[in-house]
Amino acid sequence: MELKKGLEDVAIKETEITYIDGQLGRLYYRGYPIYDLTEFSTFDEVAYLIWFGKLPNRKELQDLKEKFVEERKISDSITDYLRKVRKDANPMDVLRTAVSQIGLEDTRPGDIREKAISLASKIPIIISYFSRLRDGKDIVEPDPSLSHVENFLYMLNGNKPSQVESRTMDVTMILHIDHEMNASTFACLVVASTLSDLYSSVVAGISALKGPLHGGANAEALKQFMEIGSKENVTDYIMKRLENGQRIMGFGHRIYKTYDPRARILKDYAKKITEERGNKELFAIAEKVDEIGCKILGKKGIYPNVDFYAGIVLYSLGFNPDLFPTVFASSRVVGWTAHVMEYLKDNKLIRPKAIYRGEIGRKYIDLDSRE
Amino acid sequence: MELKKGLEDVAIKETEITYIDGQLGRLYYRGYPIYDLTEFSTFDEVAYLIWFGKLPNRKELQDLKEKFVEERKISDSITDYLRKVRKDANPMDVLRTAVSQIGLEDTRPGDIREKAISLASKIPIIISYFSRLRDGKDIVEPDPSLSHVENFLYMLNGNKPSQVESRTMDVTMILHIDHEMNASTFACLVVASTLSDLYSSVVAGISALKGPLHGGANAEALKQFMEIGSKENVTDYIMKRLENGQRIMGFGHRIYKTYDPRARILKDYAKKITEERGNKELFAIAEKVDEIGCKILGKKGIYPNVDFYAGIVLYSLGFNPDLFPTVFASSRVVGWTAHVMEYLKDNKLIRPKAIYRGEIGRKYIDLDSRE
Ligand SMILES: CC(C)(COP(=O)(O)OP(=O)(O)OC[C@H]1O[C@@H](n2cnc3c(N)ncnc32)[C@H](O)[C@@H]1OP(=O)(O)O)[C@@H](O)C(=O)NCCC(=O)NCCS
Ligand SMILES: CC(C)(COP(=O)(O)OP(=O)(O)OC[C@H]1O[C@@H](n2cnc3c(N)ncnc32)[C@H](O)[C@@H]1OP(=O)(O)O)[C@@H](O)C(=O)NCCC(=O)NCCS
Repeated sequence: MELKKGLEDVAIKETEITYIDGQLGRLYYRGYPIYDLTEFSTFDEVAYLIWFGKLPNRKELQDLKEKFVEERKISDSITDYLRKVRKDANPMDVLRTAVSQIGLEDTRPGDIREKAISLASKIPIIISYFSRLRDGKDIVEPDPSLSHVENFLYMLNGNKPSQVESRTMDVTMILHIDHEMNASTFACLVVASTLSDLYSSVVAGISALKGPLHGGANAEALKQFMEIGSKENVTDYIMKRLENGQRIMGFGHRIYKTYDPRARILKDYAKKITEERGNKELFAIAEKVDEIGCKILGKKGIYPNVDFYAGIVLYSLGFNPDLFPTVFASSRVVGWTAHVMEYLKDNKLIRPKAIYRGEIGRKYIDLDSRE
Repeated sequence: MELKKGLEDVAIKETEITYIDGQLGRLYYRGYPIYDLTEFSTFDEVAYLIWFGKLPNRKELQDLKEKFVEERKISDSITDYLRKVRKDANPMDVLRTAVSQIGLEDTRPGDIREKAISLASKIPIIISYFSRLRDGKDIVEPDPSLSHVENFLYMLNGNKPSQVESRTMDVTMILHIDHEMNASTFACLVVASTLSDLYSSVVAGISALKGPLHGGANAEALKQFMEIGSKENVTDYIMKRLENGQRIMGFGHRIYKTYDPRARILKDYAKKITEERGNKELFAIAEKVDEIGCKILGKKGIYPNVDFYAGIVLYSLGFNPDLFPTVFASSRVVGWTAHVMEYLKDNKLIRPKAIYRGEIGRKYIDLDSRE
């Protein structure tokens, strides 16, 4: 039996959801190029595409939007919980616990896709309630006239997003919806394969996404730009880091060996949103890191990844950096649940093995004779 | 890239914790035969062995017992939660949420093994508080003079366990501590590999164990014996089930192709405890199913597994069948956390792949032109 520690070259399932071409830097959802989807579609449409396998027509899109609006509420017990939970709690711990409780409370029968839609609608409420309450602000009730992402920003910030803001949020959320197999999606599948429930799967996904190797890099990238402080310091900063064997945050990817298409798309929006929000210097620093980083690291196949500009974007949209992984979860929940549904169509319990390297048949020693 | 759907023949790690010989029906923890451990050791000792790699001497054992006692408490907010949570909630949902909240509340620095010990000490409290409160009974405060398993039974039932009860619980808990890789342990590892925290890992383990393919079979086995109703009905029942292509619950195992050593050990305790508790008929039915089942299925390598007698035992110890998976979790948490610690010594992010089987490069269709 071969040891496959990170399962790097092991395929766990067949999929029709996402395809990544890491050499050419291309990403497809359900066969559609990511460039088209981010240019022409909204988050609602792409969520529909991922869950149902086709782009929605007007009627189907309207139905999904209505379901989103209908499910845009959380129970009193969870609201109460968010009021009482410690203000310094890790937001991912809050989200993990609240989603676990949503699962406990959901006794409605109903198909798994309905539950996925419901959960995707509730996660932004948890995040924005918690964010406002810990800041001592009143919670903002959802507004049924707003789209999923507009409402998210509205509930977070307390005012309706501008055109640029809502479009930037749409694109950011689309870009995080799915990325084939990854640790959090895989955690969802391991749980689903025991025929546990959908909420248990998502709770496992959140648990995995919390890890700094997975959901933490965008905040690190932002921190790095803030540390650099001004455009003039970029070259020095990079040189010093590389000389010390440190990494540039937001550069490099397991699969992409060229510019990550998600980073390319986000860059444009990062530019627009930082202009609107008066954060131009932050973008200028990032752009310079991008330029110099590519010159030095590009020949090794190391280019900006999705996290590189995502931090700046989310920050400009009003999210505190410790909320970034929860925003990631609010989008990735679509991919998580779609992969669970796909896996369950032909389920097989996921149970790998371990190779034993210890002694066998040690002689039992009496308690009083032990060292 | 090869498709390895259930990862059946893929080794995810090397281990020095548990070794299973499925052909000979042998099980070793840290190299010690399970027969010796269940005969001569207590749960506390075996938990020490799994976590620390050696059997404890008197001093080490005393230290662990003291830590167990010290950590035998849950916060007011969690006690309050258990009072208010719906009485008809799935106990695994309650446990998952409560452990997630314990993780949120634990801001103490401290090494991961200390946290594992603390959590193992708290899980029985959650289970017994919830069980008593939903039955309208007062909660029972932990008793520091009792061992881990004695205290568990005491807090559940409100009276101190007999010799037979506490020994039976000891053995049952020892037998469930670890079983090499399995879906829940693996879920813990996937989460841990992102460098997420220990509680997040355990929450994922609970989420996976909730699935009927994993933690549900002992209750099914018990239900089957109750349905059979009397010894005389056994032969008919088995014949009918097999003729209808149905399975005998508690028979068969992915790895054991002979009598599961854990079932062999539990059988003796099932006999004793059912005698003491006036459940002799239930044991007689099970024994007959065992005998006839082995005659018919044994030649195909299908024999009783651990779940076969575990249901009767846990039921006789006072646990409602819907609590069985939580008891399983209260023991397996030792294995989960030990495997996480072992994996993190040489961590590698667990990220498999998927094989894409859909179209690539579909042409984007405008919203109003979609079917
Ligand atoms: C994402 C990441 C883990 C992928 O790594 P990987 O494919 O496993 O590649 P490795 O970690 O083995 O690195 C390969 C080489 O590239 C270098 N490298 C990788 N990422 C680098 C970075 N961001 N900056 C500088 N050098 C980098 C490594 O130092 C190594 O160099 P060497 O061969 O001379 O030792 C890695 O690029 C990284 O740590 N990036 C920074 C953090 C980040 O942005 N993460 C977000 C992931 S979405
Ligand atoms: C545990 C279990 C899933 C392992 O199964 P597996 O190794 O994947 O084996 P399969 O499910 O492929 O079964 C192999 C053959 O044995 C038969 N078989 C397996 N378990 C059986 C059982 N409990 N009763 C009757 N027949 C059984 C199957 O019907 C199959 O027969 P076939 O080859 O004539 O079709 C299986 O034995 C089972 O379902 N047992 C009952 C539930 C149970 O006790 N689970 C507890 C697991 S700890």
